[in-house]
Amino acid sequence: MMIGKTDLVDKVKETIDEYNMLISGDKVLVSVSAGPDSMALLHTLLKLKNIYDINLHLFHLDHLTREGQSSIDAKFVKELSEKLGINLTLYVKSAEKYVKEKGLSFETGARELRLNLIQKVANQEKITKIATGHNANDLAETILMRLMRGTGTKGMIGISPTQGKFIRPLIYIFRDEIEKFCYENKINYRVDQTNLESYYFRNAIRNKLIPLMREISKKDFLKNLINFSKIYLEEDRFLNSLTKKIYYKISKRKNNDVYIPIIELKNLPPALNRRLLRLAIEEKKGELLDISFNAVEDIIDSLKNETEFFEFNLPKFMKVVKDKENLVIKKIEKQKIFFKKEIPMEGTCILETLNLVIETKIVDGKDAKIKDDKTTAYLDYESIIPKLYVRPWEFGDRFIPLGLDKGKKLQDFFVDEKVAQEKRKTIPILVDSEKIVWIVGYRIDERVKVKPETRKVLIINVKELS
Amino acid sequence: MMIGKTDLVDKVKETIDEYNMLISGDKVLVSVSAGPDSMALLHTLLKLKNIYDINLHLFHLDHLTREGQSSIDAKFVKELSEKLGINLTLYVKSAEKYVKEKGLSFETGARELRLNLIQKVANQEKITKIATGHNANDLAETILMRLMRGTGTKGMIGISPTQGKFIRPLIYIFRDEIEKFCYENKINYRVDQTNLESYYFRNAIRNKLIPLMREISKKDFLKNLINFSKIYLEEDRFLNSLTKKIYYKISKRKNNDVYIPIIELKNLPPALNRRLLRLAIEEKKGELLDISFNAVEDIIDSLKNETEFFEFNLPKFMKVVKDKENLVIKKIEKQKIFFKKEIPMEGTCILETLNLVIETKIVDGKDAKIKDDKTTAYLDYESIIPKLYVRPWEFGDRFIPLGLDKGKKLQDFFVDEKVAQEKRKTIPILVDSEKIVWIVGYRIDERVKVKPETRKVLIINVKELS
Repeated sequence: MMIGKTDLVDKVKETIDEYNMLISGDKVLVSVSAGPDSMALLHTLLKLKNIYDINLHLFHLDHLTREGQSSIDAKFVKELSEKLGINLTLYVKSAEKYVKEKGLSFETGARELRLNLIQKVANQEKITKIATGHNANDLAETILMRLMRGTGTKGMIGISPTQGKFIRPLIYIFRDEIEKFCYENKINYRVDQTNLESYYFRNAIRNKLIPLMREISKKDFLKNLINFSKIYLEEDRFLNSLTKKIYYKISKRKNNDVYIPIIELKNLPPALNRRLLRLAIEEKKGELLDISFNAVEDIIDSLKNETEFFEFNLPKFMKVVKDKENLVIKKIEKQKIFFKKEIPMEGTCILETLNLVIETKIVDGKDAKIKDDKTTAYLDYESIIPKLYVRPWEFGDRFIPLGLDKGKKLQDFFVDEKVAQEKRKTIPILVDSEKIVWIVGYRIDERVKVKPETRKVLIINVKELS
Repeated sequence: MMIGKTDLVDKVKETIDEYNMLISGDKVLVSVSAGPDSMALLHTLLKLKNIYDINLHLFHLDHLTREGQSSIDAKFVKELSEKLGINLTLYVKSAEKYVKEKGLSFETGARELRLNLIQKVANQEKITKIATGHNANDLAETILMRLMRGTGTKGMIGISPTQGKFIRPLIYIFRDEIEKFCYENKINYRVDQTNLESYYFRNAIRNKLIPLMREISKKDFLKNLINFSKIYLEEDRFLNSLTKKIYYKISKRKNNDVYIPIIELKNLPPALNRRLLRLAIEEKKGELLDISFNAVEDIIDSLKNETEFFEFNLPKFMKVVKDKENLVIKKIEKQKIFFKKEIPMEGTCILETLNLVIETKIVDGKDAKIKDDKTTAYLDYESIIPKLYVRPWEFGDRFIPLGLDKGKKLQDFFVDEKVAQEKRKTIPILVDSEKIVWIVGYRIDERVKVKPETRKVLIINVKELS
């Protein structure tokens, strides 16, 4: 089990030094899944333990999945910790159960559970660093995923080598190097049959996309992706620290809201402008999930207009208001607005805050009698991507109004339809998992209209709660 | 032929305004190929002509290709210019002939010829802007190409909306929007059967990669690529202008060389550090072609070492020297160094500057008698990617020395082999189109060694010119 001097250990050491991952006295929690990555990570850290003067503590979570396989992994890690004489915190928690209780997808839920437990152990054991086994292939796959799914600029970084207490010493080591290291040093591992994050998508990238890209580029293109990610990581950090300095200098806080003088925003280069706005939203919202590229662009665009007053919703009860002198980022008081709410494909749903009832039913195409009725929508059932939700309108919303053949900003639609600012907040927007399907009382989306070939019609009726 | 108000014209106008592409009085050369992109560009500019107060001048180049088809394109453009009453400069030049004379690939040569002629017309006609028809699909394809082939950070910008006099008003318009615009406005165009740039690679991206990415992402991922490119364009411009300011402040010029104080470099954030070094190389070299990621990283790495003196070659007779206080970027005097030179797969090649003869021949695997001889290399012919070249060593060079299973910096190899700094410049390096194959007199590359299954052996002998 003793690892000699190897190229892999040297390369990992280079990464640790470059990103200052370890300092003397660090107590490092090593998240060990029993797979090759975490086993290589553990053995590399064992080898470097004395050089950096650090202590190790193992963490493992048995999710109780894969028909007992997960418990064999747990046993493997337990025996390992005993053999190495390193403390282990082992949790046995059903991911299935957690996911059900929280109403999350398996992937999201299992990840949340693991991170919560890691955080808990980190507090109890006075852990200063948390090491995970992410490798360069994970990084390249993540970059491609983000590039396709769309993110802000974070996407091109993929997975950062460090993030708070988290360190990823293997992040620039490719999977084949890790497997070779394990083979040569006779390191046993268990093959992990599930990949908790985005299983289908990541596998399609790994097994279809990357091989095709390799074939047509005839180059070692994964290295190119990683090189770009490394460069961009540093540029991103520099731009962020510069933006933060400016942000704290120009922004003001009044009544718990963030005020940013518009004149200052306008004087910034566009690159910082966008980042500053995201920082402000992050301060109020806690994170930047669900803040789309379009929402940020629209807010920046609105600055060009001298006189107009704006008030827009963002997800999680955030609101951006523009007066003549400031952009104000604030939380919306919850009672005044309705929530994003799932509505059944067939059934009844009550929207108390707006005093409305939404009824849905599915009928055969030939049975549907389509009437001209502002409070009822007739939609092509097969063009809807489940699930169906109702929510207030948000900054960045776009749809294709029935009869048009290209998208339109919802904001422009409201202006054309002369809907008053105040009224806009109370109009229910029906959306499926990908797009707006109905601006209730105004217009359905072109993409979900009933066509001659429509087989099933989804009828949605909205009426006042009596 | 009169185009009414359309969404496409509005969108193009937005791009023109956002990137300040046009100012009153501009004389715009429109490069018209006769294809849909350039026809849509021309008609959009005609529509916006009075709004911006600009003049148009057409440019077309008949390459004399495609069995007379190119001349039909030229006739089409000529008739168009007469009908519209707009001046046209029409060139008829054989690309084939130009390419042969210059010894370039068809793609590179045809592009160079076109750009030279455009530049010539621009000077003659006092042109202030040159408009080309690149669209959003071209942009997305270019980003993917660069991402796979590897570039510095420029890759993620793909094609910049403006570059010197060049403007690309359609850069954020997708191909299907352009075709629809042409269809609806009855704009005739000619289908261009050749794509001059990187024909195979770009087509593989267009016809295989993008459809697969669309299928597995289930999203409009091209828009995500373009959004990232737009953001990064601004960040890149900002970082560059910041770096330029610092560069001119800290760098000094002595005897035509650029001196950068190392202490100043070390105080910069890594993001600017890398850009500053590239700027310095660009100043001396004129451009940054062939300056690899690895070369720049190696130079930056060398700064960490307090005492070591470095002297390294870069392509095009560039040299980076590190003394205790400065990085010095200089041109190498040509007579002192040999050039990159193609050598035939079978034949003789004389390297006068080093007083050497290189002889190559290909023999059947079973006929090859492999001898242990420092001046002769025996290589697996099928592992060589034509063509073969000899050149001096360059910063960033890496190879896999015979017997090792992973890459090594050539610099480290020389240190291990105790080759003196001065001698390193005179060692011929044999390379194929992708990799180093032989460090003459020292070691061949593992990837080109003769294997049991080798069918043909390439024998290379290097000896003193007598």
